[in-house]
Amino acid sequence: MSLGTILPAGFRYAAAYAGIRKVAKDDLALIVSDTPASAAAVFTKNLVVAAPVELARRNLRESRGRVRAWLINAGNANCATRTGERVALECVRSVAKTLGVQEQEVLPASTGVIGVEMNARLIVDTIPELAAALRPDSFDAVAAAIMTTDTRAKTAFAKMKRATVAGMAKGSGMIHPRMATTLGFVMTDAVASPAELRAALKKAIGVSFNRISVDGDTSTNDVVAVLANGASGFKPGARALEGGLTEVLESLAKQIARDGEGARKLVTIDVEGTATEREAETIARTIANSPLVKTAIAGSDPNWGRVLAAAGYSGVRFDPRKTDIFMQGMAVCRGGLAAAFSEAELTRKLDESECLIRFVIRGGGKGRARFWTCDLTEEYIRINASYRT
Amino acid sequence: MSLGTILPAGFRYAAAYAGIRKVAKDDLALIVSDTPASAAAVFTKNLVVAAPVELARRNLRESRGRVRAWLINAGNANCATRTGERVALECVRSVAKTLGVQEQEVLPASTGVIGVEMNARLIVDTIPELAAALRPDSFDAVAAAIMTTDTRAKTAFAKMKRATVAGMAKGSGMIHPRMATTLGFVMTDAVASPAELRAALKKAIGVSFNRISVDGDTSTNDVVAVLANGASGFKPGARALEGGLTEVLESLAKQIARDGEGARKLVTIDVEGTATEREAETIARTIANSPLVKTAIAGSDPNWGRVLAAAGYSGVRFDPRKTDIFMQGMAVCRGGLAAAFSEAELTRKLDESECLIRFVIRGGGKGRARFWTCDLTEEYIRINASYRT
Repeated sequence: MSLGTILPAGFRYAAAYAGIRKVAKDDLALIVSDTPASAAAVFTKNLVVAAPVELARRNLRESRGRVRAWLINAGNANCATRTGERVALECVRSVAKTLGVQEQEVLPASTGVIGVEMNARLIVDTIPELAAALRPDSFDAVAAAIMTTDTRAKTAFAKMKRATVAGMAKGSGMIHPRMATTLGFVMTDAVASPAELRAALKKAIGVSFNRISVDGDTSTNDVVAVLANGASGFKPGARALEGGLTEVLESLAKQIARDGEGARKLVTIDVEGTATEREAETIARTIANSPLVKTAIAGSDPNWGRVLAAAGYSGVRFDPRKTDIFMQGMAVCRGGLAAAFSEAELTRKLDESECLIRFVIRGGGKGRARFWTCDLTEEYIRINASYRT
Repeated sequence: MSLGTILPAGFRYAAAYAGIRKVAKDDLALIVSDTPASAAAVFTKNLVVAAPVELARRNLRESRGRVRAWLINAGNANCATRTGERVALECVRSVAKTLGVQEQEVLPASTGVIGVEMNARLIVDTIPELAAALRPDSFDAVAAAIMTTDTRAKTAFAKMKRATVAGMAKGSGMIHPRMATTLGFVMTDAVASPAELRAALKKAIGVSFNRISVDGDTSTNDVVAVLANGASGFKPGARALEGGLTEVLESLAKQIARDGEGARKLVTIDVEGTATEREAETIARTIANSPLVKTAIAGSDPNWGRVLAAAGYSGVRFDPRKTDIFMQGMAVCRGGLAAAFSEAELTRKLDESECLIRFVIRGGGKGRARFWTCDLTEEYIRINASYRT
């Protein structure tokens, strides 16, 4: 593949069709580091947690953040099932045995329908084929295998001097009856300890995956993980490591927001002038989650009253009379009142595939935050109202 | 009108077309009590508050809860406008002068588009006609005049021994570009002090209007109010008063939920077995607000995994392994796992116009709550994506 040259060294990838999904499209993938890699991961905060999430968390702890492989399947979340724990364990053991690594060095991730027993046999029987197919340049095949309702694969790359970062992701919140979950996997050949990786991942997630909203739901299976195997021999500083991860994760997050079910537009929401970053984020998130704002964008409607009203119920205190709102760079609201603008011109600008809403509290504090979402179209409903099985 | 006999005594109603809406449909209404009535009201908690809400709150305070009239208009929210305060005051003064009552005894309410200056002249010029048209049996005309995107007028009635309660409402959260706001007006001829009325309204709202969710947004103009003029001479006890208001407000709330934009189904969500009522309400609200649950109901999809996942991110701690979920009375999830049920039969049952989801934590506490919402259909998007002006 053409991107092969910028992939981090020392990782191999493989994807195959194990028969978990009904359609004959790869549904099982393996990411392997040639040497034990430092690992960090952020898991769903949902109280209802899938068996693979619990096992991944446990193995990550027991291996003290030294990991060799991620085994990922689509088509079944292995959540709220009688056999969940046993199935996840059986699959992980099979990978460990085949690769000749410790069981605790293999982490599982699943995405798909909740509440349907997963057939471990389908996966275990495919693992030898999968292991045999491992290649350094099959990165894109894995990015495609983890797709569910995604309309395109999501990958992103960055350089940190001599080291490289490559990431892939799928999904947009919990979005489809059969296909839940946001998954993200980032590989780098930089040198970093598990603790350094954890710190950098936490910060990078905070301004990327935690700043997107498609439908407000969070899934039982979400995981965003990073592996650093040190194969480049280059050790970035904390800021550089955080910067590299942020670049990749922000790109992936935006790709997810843009590819929300039925979405036609990427919407960026900038909030400025609050007392704290957290307040700015709260306002931005509330605007991004408002179905009224999202449908207005779908209809290219410069309905700033909905933006102001959404901020008004965010729980953050601010003075509406000091609030300016801009859409596509045009002032639509000044000091909480309608600004003079050409509706025809703005409507035309809102027809573009990227929309920017700026919400500014004049003379306020230094708090600011950027958030991404998508428009809410009839197609979203069509996809999500379809029958489960 | 046929319901005339059960209307509370001592109230008169009128509606007219003042030209605020573009379509020639009544957009101005007046509710008058023949004597000063005890009054209580609950206003929006949105930080962005329309001028009529601020004036109504002030007049209610200054009149010490003794009120003669509500003046209500549709077509313009009188919010985020330069002239809002002056316009609201001018309209209220005109009503007070025409009726020969104190300015503080008249409360205004508005619903409609945000950020467009409201023409006081249109309203002031119509008030003489409106006052002349006041009749005890024009209740339904007012219920119709305050409608915006509502597909039907919402009214409800109850008896408290010799006293009567009659209520009307419009809207479903902040739902339409031109037509925001939930409004509710309840009249009774029972005897009650403003303080007694406030206490009863607060409790009744807590289990009715605060238990519905259409799209999660709250408006800048919401108000639910009650007037008690004592014309029946009957003074109910605190429990009876609360019961009468609750009966009317619960019926109105359910009518609003059922009439959510594009909705085809009323969805009732019962949560049982939490430690507190508040926890039950939080879980029920989170399930009700989940676009995934709402679209599943639209598609008659018995997707209990989405219900469980929504409860899981509600923030309430519970044990998924002790959770049972029922849809239309059929067990779909037992102890957090799939129950055996006929999907064909349940799908057929979910095609009905009323859906019941029961979420039960076995062996849990005494907390329980009932919540209402509607399904989320493509029609919702179609309505809300339409252009603002």
